[in-house]
Amino acid sequence: MHSLPEPIARLIAALGQWPGVGPRSAERIALHLVQSDPHAVREVAQAILSAREQVTFCNTCGALTERQPCAICDDPRRDCSIVCVVERPVDILSIEKSGTYRGKFHVLGGKISPLNGIGPEDLRIGSLVERASAGAIQEVIIALPSDVEGDATSSYLAKLLSSKSVQVSRIAHGLPVGTGLEFADGLTLSRALEGRRPAL
Amino acid sequence: MHSLPEPIARLIAALGQWPGVGPRSAERIALHLVQSDPHAVREVAQAILSAREQVTFCNTCGALTERQPCAICDDPRRDCSIVCVVERPVDILSIEKSGTYRGKFHVLGGKISPLNGIGPEDLRIGSLVERASAGAIQEVIIALPSDVEGDATSSYLAKLLSSKSVQVSRIAHGLPVGTGLEFADGLTLSRALEGRRPAL
Repeated sequence: MHSLPEPIARLIAALGQWPGVGPRSAERIALHLVQSDPHAVREVAQAILSAREQVTFCNTCGALTERQPCAICDDPRRDCSIVCVVERPVDILSIEKSGTYRGKFHVLGGKISPLNGIGPEDLRIGSLVERASAGAIQEVIIALPSDVEGDATSSYLAKLLSSKSVQVSRIAHGLPVGTGLEFADGLTLSRALEGRRPAL
Repeated sequence: MHSLPEPIARLIAALGQWPGVGPRSAERIALHLVQSDPHAVREVAQAILSAREQVTFCNTCGALTERQPCAICDDPRRDCSIVCVVERPVDILSIEKSGTYRGKFHVLGGKISPLNGIGPEDLRIGSLVERASAGAIQEVIIALPSDVEGDATSSYLAKLLSSKSVQVSRIAHGLPVGTGLEFADGLTLSRALEGRRPAL
């Protein structure tokens, strides 16, 4: 029986290990690469190597960074009395884009999820408690997504941090700005009602 | 505003160019790579480079190969009077796995699809006609998928090759072996009825 050339078979196997890339996608990507401009292919291989070699996680907050500590942890103009807890390193980017937050961050690295075998000990919770205990932090803002696991993790963190002298809050969930009631799902709407605030 | 470290941003942009990889998948893959074992990451980068450098398309049949002509075209034990036309190089593998075909192959590289701007001139049809005209080939088996574009391309090829002294056939579409009528969709069932054969 004839089989695929060994370099292609090896590439498909390697790509198939990546998250979200199944055997069919791996095959499609491999075929695409074999037909691509050799210069572009060398560039992407180099991008993979550079990212792995140069990028690491900030020892303090867990953000992606090229140096220790990361640019945000090291920035004296940022308010070190507030820490915003996010799930993934890229979430920092979303909040930074809003341009309204000037505090520090803490990346959990996931959500508590017993079904997937992820317990509190698998997340960066110990280092968050350590930071909260150190004294400088006055408020912890939890910015985890509003799903079952996000809600459970938020409650867990709130309880854990309540013994420290820090205020714990959670970002508001409600109607996105600019959309009408007719576009909101029931859960978002009930969260928006629960989270109502004095109008004046 | 804080942004992602440059090597990560560059990697996400590069991965996002791949077929089937959107910005969210690219982000997920990039984060995965940054956290992977450096040795494994070097291996995948090397697999990409090797595949691009060592693998090319057979000048005769269009299969993926490390040498010219490919192993199948070069195999004197294979029947050179039959050519099986497939859409993609990986389709050869599917037919080889069945273990029943001992002829040669011809990869079209796609299907005729006016909506996507793919005409006969974009496919490896010219070289198929050339092979069919050379004299050695007696039968061309079209093994394109049975969708609108596959059907149209099959008809086009059948008409085109009818002027040559070759027999043109198409693989049978019908009920997969081992499944009952209750699992077949209507279209497959009507193809199975159309393609009925004497039982004895």
